[in-house]
Amino acid sequence: MHRNQLNFSGGPGALPDSVLQQVQQAVVELPETGLSVLGMSHRSSWFVDLLAQTEADLRALLQVPDDYSVAFLQGGSSLQFSMIPMNFSVPGAAAAEYVTTGYWSRKVLEEASRVGPMRVIWDGAASGYRALPSLDALDWDTRASFRHYVSNETVEGLQFPAVTDLPGSPLIADMSSDFMSKPFDVRAYGMVYAHAQKNLGPAGVTVTLIRNALLERTPDTLPPMLDYRTHIKHRSNYNTPPVFAIYVMAKVLHWIRDEIGGLDAMRDINSRKSAALYATLDGLREVVDCHAEKAARSMMNIAFRFKDARLDTLFKEKSTEAGLSGLGGHRSLGGMRASLYNAVSEQAVKRLTTFINEFAVRYA
Amino acid sequence: MHRNQLNFSGGPGALPDSVLQQVQQAVVELPETGLSVLGMSHRSSWFVDLLAQTEADLRALLQVPDDYSVAFLQGGSSLQFSMIPMNFSVPGAAAAEYVTTGYWSRKVLEEASRVGPMRVIWDGAASGYRALPSLDALDWDTRASFRHYVSNETVEGLQFPAVTDLPGSPLIADMSSDFMSKPFDVRAYGMVYAHAQKNLGPAGVTVTLIRNALLERTPDTLPPMLDYRTHIKHRSNYNTPPVFAIYVMAKVLHWIRDEIGGLDAMRDINSRKSAALYATLDGLREVVDCHAEKAARSMMNIAFRFKDARLDTLFKEKSTEAGLSGLGGHRSLGGMRASLYNAVSEQAVKRLTTFINEFAVRYA
Ligand SMILES: Cc1ncc(COP(=O)(O)O)c(C=O)c1O
Ligand SMILES: Cc1ncc(COP(=O)(O)O)c(C=O)c1O
Repeated sequence: MHRNQLNFSGGPGALPDSVLQQVQQAVVELPETGLSVLGMSHRSSWFVDLLAQTEADLRALLQVPDDYSVAFLQGGSSLQFSMIPMNFSVPGAAAAEYVTTGYWSRKVLEEASRVGPMRVIWDGAASGYRALPSLDALDWDTRASFRHYVSNETVEGLQFPAVTDLPGSPLIADMSSDFMSKPFDVRAYGMVYAHAQKNLGPAGVTVTLIRNALLERTPDTLPPMLDYRTHIKHRSNYNTPPVFAIYVMAKVLHWIRDEIGGLDAMRDINSRKSAALYATLDGLREVVDCHAEKAARSMMNIAFRFKDARLDTLFKEKSTEAGLSGLGGHRSLGGMRASLYNAVSEQAVKRLTTFINEFAVRYA
Repeated sequence: MHRNQLNFSGGPGALPDSVLQQVQQAVVELPETGLSVLGMSHRSSWFVDLLAQTEADLRALLQVPDDYSVAFLQGGSSLQFSMIPMNFSVPGAAAAEYVTTGYWSRKVLEEASRVGPMRVIWDGAASGYRALPSLDALDWDTRASFRHYVSNETVEGLQFPAVTDLPGSPLIADMSSDFMSKPFDVRAYGMVYAHAQKNLGPAGVTVTLIRNALLERTPDTLPPMLDYRTHIKHRSNYNTPPVFAIYVMAKVLHWIRDEIGGLDAMRDINSRKSAALYATLDGLREVVDCHAEKAARSMMNIAFRFKDARLDTLFKEKSTEAGLSGLGGHRSLGGMRASLYNAVSEQAVKRLTTFINEFAVRYA
């Protein structure tokens, strides 16, 4: 197995080998144009077509309704944290509501609080961010500008179950670490956003899906670059887009569609992968703790640690020696984290569970 | 000659073949880590080192003084247009002053005017943006927050001569299309910025150099992502940076240093290239017009057209057939444009001038 397939990094994460091979070719010579993809003009018909096709492919895979716009942006998910209130706060409405479930939802607050009035409707700090609330049970204010939550907390490894309908103000989700890992109902959301570098491509591009009605709120006073309407109107080609990142994303979308067979199949694979890893860790519960409570467990990121902290250090050392990479936990949490993004295969997870079991037998 | 070397695109532009080869390898397996560069975590020691080394290499090539900070950002040069007044407008100071010399300085105004008070101190519209003012002759207000100009107008092909000293408020330059094409005196500027996709790398990363004293102006009310201090403090690794674009940029910097021999040598090559092309076009002045007045001619972008507009269309067709690409003028100006960025070799320019002469003999 090629080492790239044993990359359990929290992101940027592994990409499929078949995609890497096409990209490798394109760096020197894109078959369609004979030029390096890195030197392709964003105004070339090749790239304009690629943008349109990539949007169409994304729409088809996710069944994005016609009254939603799609834009591919720069700045990472972190720039969305402030662009959202800039564009969608309604003057005079009740404060936007934020569900605070871990490291990333706290980061959201740092940016959003500089822009408009906001209220934290739930905060999991007391439990050490190990659990999630039930979204329908929260005391939402229907007059709020919007509601925001992080669908998968990448650091702590907490994931909300699917949302189908949540009456009230527009619901906005940061799906950075679970977008395109399974189907979801776009209609339940006013907006969804996700950077590419978990399940979808390299760092450098962020996907946004926005219900068109929300765009009517955007004030005309924003710099055009921070106004979603600019990017939507120019079909993600207003200023120079990250051509290469979009190209790679296009290839990953094809891989999901053609090699995996779509998002239902992707979800089935992803759920088998995480089930296998959780089963291994649960089997070792005498010596290993999972960070997340069972009901909040993520299919994408599994944060765990040995009860004996010295074993964490040894685990990182031995796993690296064994060719498994990216298993160190986030610097804010310590311990270990295995990220099982789309491109991490079931065989790779098998290698990981085997390694964990052998490690436990030998050292724990 | 490989087709990539005959890419005269306005940007993203050609990259050196030796860089493309290293990148091709890194897409599948980075020699230092054994993993794809696309799957490298931005928190890995490999990437943290790469960032530090890339900053050091850039500082060495440009002799950046110690009291300047360097940050690599997302969002393109266009996001800088609004971030600059957000960070550097001084409440109560006189309006920031902008020199308007073409397509890109007009774009700057669209973004900046949404943020703070500004004044256009010179506008070349009357001459059809063919000429440039002398910066020291303008009637600058010393109480202005700052002064902004575009050092090379990519669309019209106008380039300011080197600025060494311009007493007054802090001078800020958009150097997107001539950064790293020649040495310049960083001390003359409060800030300089340039995206990578002309002379330095692929689209996706923008370099900023900022005199530290200016950062004292930045208000504490900005979202951290739009506050330069955040990115500087975190050494361009606050949120996920565009890892791949930075990696390629690092390789281009090495190419400038090791294969070209530094920025003096780069300038000499670039000036021979543009001199050769201008000489060819001047020799055809009966049939061809250059857009720029002689005194304002750019070393990077040469916009020209045939007096007989039908020949423009034919030229684009025949040049493409001959394997020369990217010679169509910007959609706002029409005609032709040859961009002679760093990676376009003297031999490639020789091919272009030969082609132009043969074309003129045959069709003009
Ligand atoms: C859930 C989530 N949201 C947001 C971010 C920040 O994204 P970016 O680094 O692209 O700004 C991350 C980063 O890993 C994340 O995991
Ligand atoms: C001089 C100049 N400034 C700014 C820009 C805009 O840069 P970006 O597309 O990275 O936002 C361009 C684009 O070509 C340019 O040539």
